Amino acid sequence: MKTEILTVGTEILLGQIIDSNSSYIAQELLANGIDLYGVSTVGDNLYRIVDAIRYSLSKCDALIVTGGLGPTQDDITRNAVAMVMGVDLVENKYLKDLISKFFADRNRPMPENNLLQAMVPEGAEFIEQKLGTAPGLICPVGNKVIYCLPGVPYEMKEMLNRSVIPDILGKAQLTKHMKFVTVATWGLSESRVAELLSDEFNRLESMQKEGREYIPSIAFLANISTGIKIRVSLSGEDEIKVNEILRDEVDRVASVLGESVFSTDSETLEQVIHRICTEKSITIGLVESLTGGMIASRIVDVPGASKYFKGSIVAYDTEIKRSILKIQASEVVSEAAVIEMAKSGLELLTCDICLSISGVGGPEKQEGKDPGTVYIGLAADTAKFSKVNLNPVELKLYGSRDTIRQMATTSALDLLRRRLTHF
Amino acid sequence: MKTEILTVGTEILLGQIIDSNSSYIAQELLANGIDLYGVSTVGDNLYRIVDAIRYSLSKCDALIVTGGLGPTQDDITRNAVAMVMGVDLVENKYLKDLISKFFADRNRPMPENNLLQAMVPEGAEFIEQKLGTAPGLICPVGNKVIYCLPGVPYEMKEMLNRSVIPDILGKAQLTKHMKFVTVATWGLSESRVAELLSDEFNRLESMQKEGREYIPSIAFLANISTGIKIRVSLSGEDEIKVNEILRDEVDRVASVLGESVFSTDSETLEQVIHRICTEKSITIGLVESLTGGMIASRIVDVPGASKYFKGSIVAYDTEIKRSILKIQASEVVSEAAVIEMAKSGLELLTCDICLSISGVGGPEKQEGKDPGTVYIGLAADTAKFSKVNLNPVELKLYGSRDTIRQMATTSALDLLRRRLTHF
Repeated sequence: MKTEILTVGTEILLGQIIDSNSSYIAQELLANGIDLYGVSTVGDNLYRIVDAIRYSLSKCDALIVTGGLGPTQDDITRNAVAMVMGVDLVENKYLKDLISKFFADRNRPMPENNLLQAMVPEGAEFIEQKLGTAPGLICPVGNKVIYCLPGVPYEMKEMLNRSVIPDILGKAQLTKHMKFVTVATWGLSESRVAELLSDEFNRLESMQKEGREYIPSIAFLANISTGIKIRVSLSGEDEIKVNEILRDEVDRVASVLGESVFSTDSETLEQVIHRICTEKSITIGLVESLTGGMIASRIVDVPGASKYFKGSIVAYDTEIKRSILKIQASEVVSEAAVIEMAKSGLELLTCDICLSISGVGGPEKQEGKDPGTVYIGLAADTAKFSKVNLNPVELKLYGSRDTIRQMATTSALDLLRRRLTHF
Repeated sequence: MKTEILTVGTEILLGQIIDSNSSYIAQELLANGIDLYGVSTVGDNLYRIVDAIRYSLSKCDALIVTGGLGPTQDDITRNAVAMVMGVDLVENKYLKDLISKFFADRNRPMPENNLLQAMVPEGAEFIEQKLGTAPGLICPVGNKVIYCLPGVPYEMKEMLNRSVIPDILGKAQLTKHMKFVTVATWGLSESRVAELLSDEFNRLESMQKEGREYIPSIAFLANISTGIKIRVSLSGEDEIKVNEILRDEVDRVASVLGESVFSTDSETLEQVIHRICTEKSITIGLVESLTGGMIASRIVDVPGASKYFKGSIVAYDTEIKRSILKIQASEVVSEAAVIEMAKSGLELLTCDICLSISGVGGPEKQEGKDPGTVYIGLAADTAKFSKVNLNPVELKLYGSRDTIRQMATTSALDLLRRRLTHF
């Protein structure tokens, strides 16, 4: 079963937004063992969309089209698909009622335009919309199929996983199992990871030369706010064998990379902290300067954070550090300051452990220190946390203001994760 | 002069990396008034690349191909282009010396593979490499042209700007100027924007029917954290006329959309707040519950925020709301609570105006209230801020926990922007 993706939207051709939908769909197809042959983008022009659909469809069995299903005049994907199918658009009563209900539930008048979204090409099925007003479409063309999904990422993702992937798998009756596990790390550079794994790469290469089957492959993915991820993947007909060999390979990779590994089951750093704090009944608090609320915001991304997260004092202004936190240290970007900040936070937020952070975001120097100079402090009831290293750390980060703040945020979460592991 | 972009690389089809090169090239083409008709991606397979090049080239005058110029076995773009041109690859002595020198300068031995990069299709010109080892290629095909650039972003960008864009402009002898302005709004749905602009759409359409020149076009872009953007664009030979008519169209659009418009010059909401606070010497503070630091983090995204931003008290835990903020209100998600929160923040953070927010992120109800129920409060010195409406507002938001928190964050920033406008 070959698939292609077509993104509709002039805003992508103008470089105003990056097409992250295609990358998400590509990952989901891969995870389900479905081959992707190509990705294309076309602007909001009826004849060019029709042409692009025809060409993409000529190369695959199933085409996934995103975008152009909105309620406005330049949303013309459904018209283009109807042209390719050689049929008319007809109003669907069920969808019309659903869209009307969407607005009624919200006590908002329904713009007349939204009824465009109840139009379906004759012979097509619809995918009921759960999050927005645009339904998806499943459109047969001969023995091939076009899936149309809205361009709004969360609406697209929900429909893709609920309806499109199962539909493709059903049609393909796939017998190969493609699995992958992501080993997530923080604190190592990409080239250091490559160096540490070079023996493992050699081992896999020699297995390949021997013509062995079931050989896992390893790929890297670097991201400034989530770290280096190592994707270990394997496909084969025997699902049990695939799982077994994959698990063994993941163990090898994780053991080489050591404490830098924070998850092998797609947990994020904040989810790892959530798990540790929940399991061990630890409450946490934060005092943030440089990161201005970013650490808190990552922690509360996890539903249920209110069980262990007390809050964060974002003391951006030096005056506030002195008045609310009673910081005495002469320099607010220093080890002495972050120790005081953490201690004040511990008391004010009545938490078991408090993390503090201060640093220079740039572009200018502060207190004679270069952008990227960051201090992280910790404070806790030393009796209860006797096994935990509460020493402050100093980091030197490089990059733009935004990069420095993102890396500082993740470094702080990772430090908390490493230290709490020894609780 | 019509252009197309083709990205070569299996890693993009696997969703491992997002194709940000295409977005960069799209922006540069737009800025230079060069039309882009489509973007496609193809994996590292010779026959599929040849096919993709042929199809893209059939739709345009100039095709820009990125990726597949590296030194490894799966870098086969130059072979594919030679096949399309119907010629052989020949070694270029000058490039060979350049590559050898690259390694010699760095005291590194040159892998034999790198000499692949000195191979050029017969009849093609090369673009000398300044940053890496891969040269670019300019390959004539009949009266059309294919530009090949390396996939490494900084190498690609340098060659695009130094060589490809000037070459396209020279070939096209472009005299057209393409300009656009983005009208950014918050608080209206996409369909409501379309409805408000329908008269304007009709006016432009009738101008088109009359065969008039210099007719602006309007397109929408919706995003849950930045709102609905309306892109107004126009191209034409007379640059002064283009600017004049575009400005007039932007004024029409902005006046129809009223106070929902927060910028027509690509300022973000946080930059607008930065400008107002700096100009009027207003200091601000925050008390956040639901948004857990996200509002603070958006505000400090702007360099120089320390001049007016005092800090944020992220009181996530109810206990902390009572202890630090002295909240008396029995329900913490209520108008009464956000008024108290803002007043406490005003005092603790010694700021001129304090914004507070509380709400239900979900997935569960809280205090009997549905996810998406949000209250925003404001407090200020009422004498100084006598013209500013300090009444709290209640919002009903819909979507996932993440969507609710993002929309609440932007709604809070927008409320602050609207209210401060009247200071």
